[in-house]
Amino acid sequence: MQKLNNNFYHKDFISVEQFSHKRELDKIFTLADQMKEKIEKRRIIKDLKTFCLVELFYQPSTRTYTSFLAAGLHLGAKVIPIHGMQAYSSAVKGESLPDTVRTVEQTTAADLLILRHPADDASEIAAKYASIPIINAGSGTKEHPTQAVLDLYTLIQHFSNLQGLNITFVGDMKYGRTVKSLAKLLTYYAKNLTMNFVAPKVLKLPNLESQWLKNKQVKIHQTENLEECLSSTDVLYVTRVQKEWFEQKGKLRLYQQLKNSFIINQRILQKSKKKMIIMHPLPRVGEIAEEIDNDPRAVYFSQMRNGLYTRMALLRLILLDR
Amino acid sequence: MQKLNNNFYHKDFISVEQFSHKRELDKIFTLADQMKEKIEKRRIIKDLKTFCLVELFYQPSTRTYTSFLAAGLHLGAKVIPIHGMQAYSSAVKGESLPDTVRTVEQTTAADLLILRHPADDASEIAAKYASIPIINAGSGTKEHPTQAVLDLYTLIQHFSNLQGLNITFVGDMKYGRTVKSLAKLLTYYAKNLTMNFVAPKVLKLPNLESQWLKNKQVKIHQTENLEECLSSTDVLYVTRVQKEWFEQKGKLRLYQQLKNSFIINQRILQKSKKKMIIMHPLPRVGEIAEEIDNDPRAVYFSQMRNGLYTRMALLRLILLDR
Amino acid sequence: MQKLNNNFYHKDFISVEQFSHKRELDKIFTLADQMKEKIEKRRIIKDLKTFCLVELFYQPSTRTYTSFLAAGLHLGAKVIPIHGMQAYSSAVKGESLPDTVRTVEQTTAADLLILRHPADDASEIAAKYASIPIINAGSGTKEHPTQAVLDLYTLIQHFSNLQGLNITFVGDMKYGRTVKSLAKLLTYYAKNLTMNFVAPKVLKLPNLESQWLKNKQVKIHQTENLEECLSSTDVLYVTRVQKEWFEQKGKLRLYQQLKNSFIINQRILQKSKKKMIIMHPLPRVGEIAEEIDNDPRAVYFSQMRNGLYTRMALLRLILLDR
Repeated sequence: MQKLNNNFYHKDFISVEQFSHKRELDKIFTLADQMKEKIEKRRIIKDLKTFCLVELFYQPSTRTYTSFLAAGLHLGAKVIPIHGMQAYSSAVKGESLPDTVRTVEQTTAADLLILRHPADDASEIAAKYASIPIINAGSGTKEHPTQAVLDLYTLIQHFSNLQGLNITFVGDMKYGRTVKSLAKLLTYYAKNLTMNFVAPKVLKLPNLESQWLKNKQVKIHQTENLEECLSSTDVLYVTRVQKEWFEQKGKLRLYQQLKNSFIINQRILQKSKKKMIIMHPLPRVGEIAEEIDNDPRAVYFSQMRNGLYTRMALLRLILLDR
Repeated sequence: MQKLNNNFYHKDFISVEQFSHKRELDKIFTLADQMKEKIEKRRIIKDLKTFCLVELFYQPSTRTYTSFLAAGLHLGAKVIPIHGMQAYSSAVKGESLPDTVRTVEQTTAADLLILRHPADDASEIAAKYASIPIINAGSGTKEHPTQAVLDLYTLIQHFSNLQGLNITFVGDMKYGRTVKSLAKLLTYYAKNLTMNFVAPKVLKLPNLESQWLKNKQVKIHQTENLEECLSSTDVLYVTRVQKEWFEQKGKLRLYQQLKNSFIINQRILQKSKKKMIIMHPLPRVGEIAEEIDNDPRAVYFSQMRNGLYTRMALLRLILLDR
Repeated sequence: MQKLNNNFYHKDFISVEQFSHKRELDKIFTLADQMKEKIEKRRIIKDLKTFCLVELFYQPSTRTYTSFLAAGLHLGAKVIPIHGMQAYSSAVKGESLPDTVRTVEQTTAADLLILRHPADDASEIAAKYASIPIINAGSGTKEHPTQAVLDLYTLIQHFSNLQGLNITFVGDMKYGRTVKSLAKLLTYYAKNLTMNFVAPKVLKLPNLESQWLKNKQVKIHQTENLEECLSSTDVLYVTRVQKEWFEQKGKLRLYQQLKNSFIINQRILQKSKKKMIIMHPLPRVGEIAEEIDNDPRAVYFSQMRNGLYTRMALLRLILLDR
């Protein structure tokens, strides 16, 4: 995987592991700040008016799909959206991913391709065959790097300094890609981090990831008990525990026991800091009670707006490097 | 439901019951006339060039969907279309409508959201949670207010004065939302109205609506016999009688008896006025014979063009109030 | 079918049989060259900025769909894409094609409609009912005229002169529409042509087409043996042999025997000319080995880019005639 080396121009953006330095992220965030200001002031932006983007989505996605589409249009680019590929490609025609990627590049004369695909290595394969940059908009269970970037951008908007931050991840640490990506990315950005991973044992963080983080001097704490971490937590990052998983394994009773410990409501939050923030990559299906939505600590809706700004920044950096 | 009070700026548009005065409708129609002229003269319109619209469709729809998309693009707006949500949301991820609406608002930085949804109260729920205006593009069996507006605009293009108008609605008066919406809207616009509702007994106009209209001094006539109304009719508004409904209820024989009385063809039209107009919200599935398409009284295709002009007007009024 | 008579303005483009003269094709190709140059130099083109196009697709299609969408956007037009109509129209609402075409024309105020449909005569029907020009983007098994135009454009980019060209078509000559369309179109463009049609007997070129070509003085050679034609071939045009067809007919054993003779790989190409080019309309599913992709004779990916340029040219000619 090609390192960024503080230069995004014409590079693929596949993985958070392409980052090496805090300044690479700051470059995105500085530009995202400018994008935010322009959008809020209703400025017309024409930076990408000579560019054409393709969104190629093999998985349903409301938020990432609309976020990239809006990012392209707000920058003045032409955007060719292609979704529903899961139905087309497998059932109807059976074209390989390398062929589809090259096809779409040729038929559209696009300058950049945004890919979402259920296979872990889809973006890397696409990058190998395409002659234009690929942005990974979610590949399998492994990576969702633009989600990690928007999550980190949300953090720095709420904390003047991330050194010594205590972040508690709750939910599915095993299959969820957002937790792994954000945890890694944080290590490029701050030191003295404490990370609590709260999950049922069967969904705990894989050893590969926990070892990687330990090597980076992160203080790691794994538990099934959310409440024991809450009082020291600065950031509560909630993800969905998939009931389906327990059903498949015949462990529905375990799920019934566990599920309430992972539902964030006012009762549980009584023990938490006043300045804590609550994040969620969304969609949620019950793990954050609606009563929390108007709590000032809840930032999961504004968190999504940050996805627009950081993706606008990223598109500009890859296509124009400024 | 918030009344318009002759001011559309940043209001939701959910129901025809938001209107109180003829002048509110005239405001739309005056602007629609200007839109018509500009489109016909192929003028480039940039009124909404700084705006972004979202179409969020939970039901398949060719005409309302394309009409709003074209309306937005012709006004120079950015448009994010999201359709096929029926498949996404229920089967795949199960996100609630309030969450989806807030999500889409945040990911796109949109200024207005156009919603179509099978639930009667979907637009009101969306309006409650979104911070941007909602346009109801069809909710359940209850309301389709932009259809009523384009229908009324079609009427005033063909009649210099709607006072004393005799309008005959044919088809399904019970489940069809267009008939109810147009009948109500007409009462804000003209007096001395006669309305004939021609339907099989099982699909007759609900008491709620007929009483509402009687309170507004509308002369109401309910019947199963179309031909007895035709000679005095100025406007024949045809809707589809759903065969499926009779099938479900085991009343297919009744349907077989009734169906021919509701098919508009040249034979039936012999008794009608020369200046009568024939409308239909479309799609039709047989209730207007193709032989009528070239009859000068048939206005159902030009009626649809009015959907474009009135929706352009409405978008401009809500976003710019001019 | 209306002949072009060297004038595309406001004409439907339904069939390659609308051409009569080489100069009509040269008109497209000259303009396509200009489009190519502008796209490669990243010029902003606004030729169609006052126009609105509709894509109405009743069949899944990645390449034709994205190609026309990109062509419209690169020319500055507004584009209303409507796909997935196969699901909407048949299952959900049952509207006839003439009604849908007129509906979409009215709701969008579009200037041109691009149609893909599984019925052979769909484009002709659409042209009969619409008042705006129709472009056939694939109708049934019969015609795909814009594919033939881009194929021919690809040929003239590789051969200074098409007189005396030897072209070998491989695969399904019976149901494939691209082969028939390109073979016919070539006869308007060059003389002294040799055409080899290599197919299993059950998929051989229908007599109607072979007789038509013989009447145009084309030297025709039909065979099941690819290798016997290869040494004299200038253009190898590969298409997919549909395994499904053999399965349905209970002839899977025949397929197993035949299939390898139609797979293009380095071994087979040893006998071919160094300057031969290999084309394919794509998608492929195995009939060209991946090892060929980097062979300089393989032009099937750049062939697709020509679809963009020729469709841009065609849109401009029909809407502006220049």
